[in-house]
Amino acid sequence: MKWLKDARREVAPPRAHWRTVLHEVIFEADTPLGKVFDVLLIVSILVSVIAVMLDSIGAVQSHYGSLLYGIEWLFTIIFTVEYLLRLMCVGRPLKYAISFYGVVDLLAIIPTYVSLFLPGSQYLLVIRILRILRIFRILKLVPYLGEARLLIKALRASSHKITVFIYTVITLVVIFGSLMYVIEGGANGFTSIPRSIYWAIVTLTTVGYGDISPQTVLGQTLASMVMLLGYAIIAVPTGIVTVEMSRTFGRKVSTQACPECSAEGHDPDARHCKFCGAML
Amino acid sequence: MKWLKDARREVAPPRAHWRTVLHEVIFEADTPLGKVFDVLLIVSILVSVIAVMLDSIGAVQSHYGSLLYGIEWLFTIIFTVEYLLRLMCVGRPLKYAISFYGVVDLLAIIPTYVSLFLPGSQYLLVIRILRILRIFRILKLVPYLGEARLLIKALRASSHKITVFIYTVITLVVIFGSLMYVIEGGANGFTSIPRSIYWAIVTLTTVGYGDISPQTVLGQTLASMVMLLGYAIIAVPTGIVTVEMSRTFGRKVSTQACPECSAEGHDPDARHCKFCGAML
Amino acid sequence: MKWLKDARREVAPPRAHWRTVLHEVIFEADTPLGKVFDVLLIVSILVSVIAVMLDSIGAVQSHYGSLLYGIEWLFTIIFTVEYLLRLMCVGRPLKYAISFYGVVDLLAIIPTYVSLFLPGSQYLLVIRILRILRIFRILKLVPYLGEARLLIKALRASSHKITVFIYTVITLVVIFGSLMYVIEGGANGFTSIPRSIYWAIVTLTTVGYGDISPQTVLGQTLASMVMLLGYAIIAVPTGIVTVEMSRTFGRKVSTQACPECSAEGHDPDARHCKFCGAML
Amino acid sequence: MKWLKDARREVAPPRAHWRTVLHEVIFEADTPLGKVFDVLLIVSILVSVIAVMLDSIGAVQSHYGSLLYGIEWLFTIIFTVEYLLRLMCVGRPLKYAISFYGVVDLLAIIPTYVSLFLPGSQYLLVIRILRILRIFRILKLVPYLGEARLLIKALRASSHKITVFIYTVITLVVIFGSLMYVIEGGANGFTSIPRSIYWAIVTLTTVGYGDISPQTVLGQTLASMVMLLGYAIIAVPTGIVTVEMSRTFGRKVSTQACPECSAEGHDPDARHCKFCGAML
Repeated sequence: MKWLKDARREVAPPRAHWRTVLHEVIFEADTPLGKVFDVLLIVSILVSVIAVMLDSIGAVQSHYGSLLYGIEWLFTIIFTVEYLLRLMCVGRPLKYAISFYGVVDLLAIIPTYVSLFLPGSQYLLVIRILRILRIFRILKLVPYLGEARLLIKALRASSHKITVFIYTVITLVVIFGSLMYVIEGGANGFTSIPRSIYWAIVTLTTVGYGDISPQTVLGQTLASMVMLLGYAIIAVPTGIVTVEMSRTFGRKVSTQACPECSAEGHDPDARHCKFCGAML
Repeated sequence: MKWLKDARREVAPPRAHWRTVLHEVIFEADTPLGKVFDVLLIVSILVSVIAVMLDSIGAVQSHYGSLLYGIEWLFTIIFTVEYLLRLMCVGRPLKYAISFYGVVDLLAIIPTYVSLFLPGSQYLLVIRILRILRIFRILKLVPYLGEARLLIKALRASSHKITVFIYTVITLVVIFGSLMYVIEGGANGFTSIPRSIYWAIVTLTTVGYGDISPQTVLGQTLASMVMLLGYAIIAVPTGIVTVEMSRTFGRKVSTQACPECSAEGHDPDARHCKFCGAML
Repeated sequence: MKWLKDARREVAPPRAHWRTVLHEVIFEADTPLGKVFDVLLIVSILVSVIAVMLDSIGAVQSHYGSLLYGIEWLFTIIFTVEYLLRLMCVGRPLKYAISFYGVVDLLAIIPTYVSLFLPGSQYLLVIRILRILRIFRILKLVPYLGEARLLIKALRASSHKITVFIYTVITLVVIFGSLMYVIEGGANGFTSIPRSIYWAIVTLTTVGYGDISPQTVLGQTLASMVMLLGYAIIAVPTGIVTVEMSRTFGRKVSTQACPECSAEGHDPDARHCKFCGAML
Repeated sequence: MKWLKDARREVAPPRAHWRTVLHEVIFEADTPLGKVFDVLLIVSILVSVIAVMLDSIGAVQSHYGSLLYGIEWLFTIIFTVEYLLRLMCVGRPLKYAISFYGVVDLLAIIPTYVSLFLPGSQYLLVIRILRILRIFRILKLVPYLGEARLLIKALRASSHKITVFIYTVITLVVIFGSLMYVIEGGANGFTSIPRSIYWAIVTLTTVGYGDISPQTVLGQTLASMVMLLGYAIIAVPTGIVTVEMSRTFGRKVSTQACPECSAEGHDPDARHCKFCGAML
């Protein structure tokens, strides 16, 4: 297939030389310059995310506020230029713009500009952390990508069952929340049905903040049931995902039959039949 | 089997034409009118449940109380008429009335009438959310129904083991709760055995509100044991359900019945009936 | 084997007739009188446990204290007589006395007598709830007993791995607890190493009361690591138990080979070979 | 292979007799003297760790402070001498010094000396608990070691997938934490992004201290989503580990090596080497 791809690349309409070079530097990590660019990019992302986090701490902000403000704008401008360059040197700009990475790259620069009109929104710059995902491609962490793909495949295969489970959980918390609202009432913190549903979620998921907790005997009895239910039904998504993973990751067995004795079930790396010794 | 069902349908006593049409509109979703009816029904249910939730919020209630009261009665009357129509146009009214959907449909209108005598009970109208279950039938979400049936089958198959597990958990919380009552006493919040059992459930299920927590060294030691126990035995229901699911989802059984003895449950690779030996 | 057992029973030394009758009534549930006795026993146990629980509630105690005190002594005397009768009519009294049920039966009457010297110990009477375990034998809940035995077998098979896991968890909470004691210190609630270890258990098991929680940045960072660790390693006991259960409950396949075609893998209920149709 | 090892041992350069004897006593547990040494060692470790814990309790410290201080120094000197002896009598001192046990042995004595300059660091002596790991070797708890090795093998086999999972969780808590910081703000306890990330970890792992909890409707809605997410994705590491364990514990591989090509990893039912075809 590789020659086909190469051939197609050759017959592609010739692009300006600088665009090809730029594409190689920005999008690929095979050339030394491309590697340098990628490492610089990841360092920039990390520094910029840490700057946003530090900026949110009162004590740090009052001392280094202007410095962090400068860093924020510096990186925003750098990332904006980078975004525009990516748009320019890529073959189909629109396709990149609506791809996952394209959207993340855009989201990573917008908050700074929006913060001029809407103070506080610059903290959403932490979305830049998603850009780090490129690290997997850059560091050639192919095995990790493969594992991630397997995980996503397993989760997708079980999505129908998970949907049914989530629907059941939502129905349960709505009904239990409303019951608790009627039983406990506003005096004990269950001031409205939505808030009681929030309590039901806190309890069913076994988080248990304790900011709202039942005070009446009937309420505590019902709460006990919700807890035991939450404790038991965690087994359902776990079971679903485990079974699906066990199917997805399953041990590969060669489908090849022995030409001599027709025995099957050989390992993929077997060169001889394990029963009669014939060449496979 | 299908021709048998068709035949039975044909020999059924003829019903008044308007009842047949009504039945098709209300109970089925194949005709355009039936679809419109179902969509309207689901929108009504959602609007009515949201109205009940909003009504429970103090600030909303004081501003739009009378409007929400009107909405509540409007939908109650609509659903009452719908319920009566369902009773009238269905073949066997009693069978529908005691079916799951029939009971839910009735429960979805009763609270409003009861609230005339017993204020507060109108919040139980959220039970209407169960009516939404029809959405699966209407939107022809057959794959979801199939998955739900598999999940229920797996849970039912493990019900004996789950019962043993729940009995063990209840015994544990009764004994640990009483021990903590004796150790900690009322001064530290363990004011009675039932309340201490409530604490034991909160702790064993790893919810951990913190509204009651042990203060003495002996109490904290025992609490640590309860926590580690709760942390470890969550593995038991998870294991039970996972194994059962792996069996339910995994094992493929041929749907073929033996032409001789009509026995079912043959393996997909079977060529002969395993009971009578006839060719399949 | 059954005839062997019957034979052994016949050659057993003859016992006094009243002891045999008593044994049948008290220990067995096959005769009508035996059944009546068992049902009365279970009702007595339940009533007596509920009385102990009610007695622990302040408001109930102040109104019905003397009544509950009377009930407690009544049942204690009944159970004492029953215990003595069991000792008398059983073949080997010592063996019964040190058996699980014998010990539970004794523990179920001791607290009342001890409470004469040591007030408060009567609440330990809830241990009577363990006597209810007889219900499984009485109601002939054999399938439940079978499931319980399977569960215990699976847990016992994984006991070595579980021991290693618990040892690891204990080592982790000791080290993390001590680190937090050094980092946070007494001012933030970490007043001693044992108390900090208690905190580590509360956190690692994801119970999270919140009665002690880290206040410093370093403490919160370490706490985050403990939480993520606790969240991830719950997978270990779950995995161990699931794998062991899957092995214990595993689908039974007959080991019988077909006499005609030597095919294997037949179901245990198969009477004919599923490949060639020959009688098995 | 054994004869090879023995041969190598014989040709090793002769060591001084006292070093050989010392090595046997300290490092091995086969001779009576070696066993006595090991038991004494474990008792010392336990006593010393308990002394450190007791020392951290205010009331105990004020009464027995000087006694515990003496015990601490006594054991530190004993363990220092033991460490030096180990270094002297072992064949390759450097290799021991950088091994797991060597590092733990050193860490177990350093804190006392450091505490002369840096008060408080003596509490880190609990690291001595890791020395107890030797107990497995001493008591010949080989089956436990085998199980531990299996567990570690299963966890290592799933390390790639676990890494992907942890990366996903970290990304989630950074983004959710920042969102909550923007939504709730400092007035409700979300005083900075790092602190909000701490909250997100507390919530996602279902620990739920309740020291920080959302107060606004939007915040509670987002928190509910985080909880449901945390409740559901616990299934992922559980599934990964279960599948990996099921593979590690389940698959039996013959220990037989091929007489021709020495390849290993044959199935138990193999009669021919699957690589070269020779008879096994």
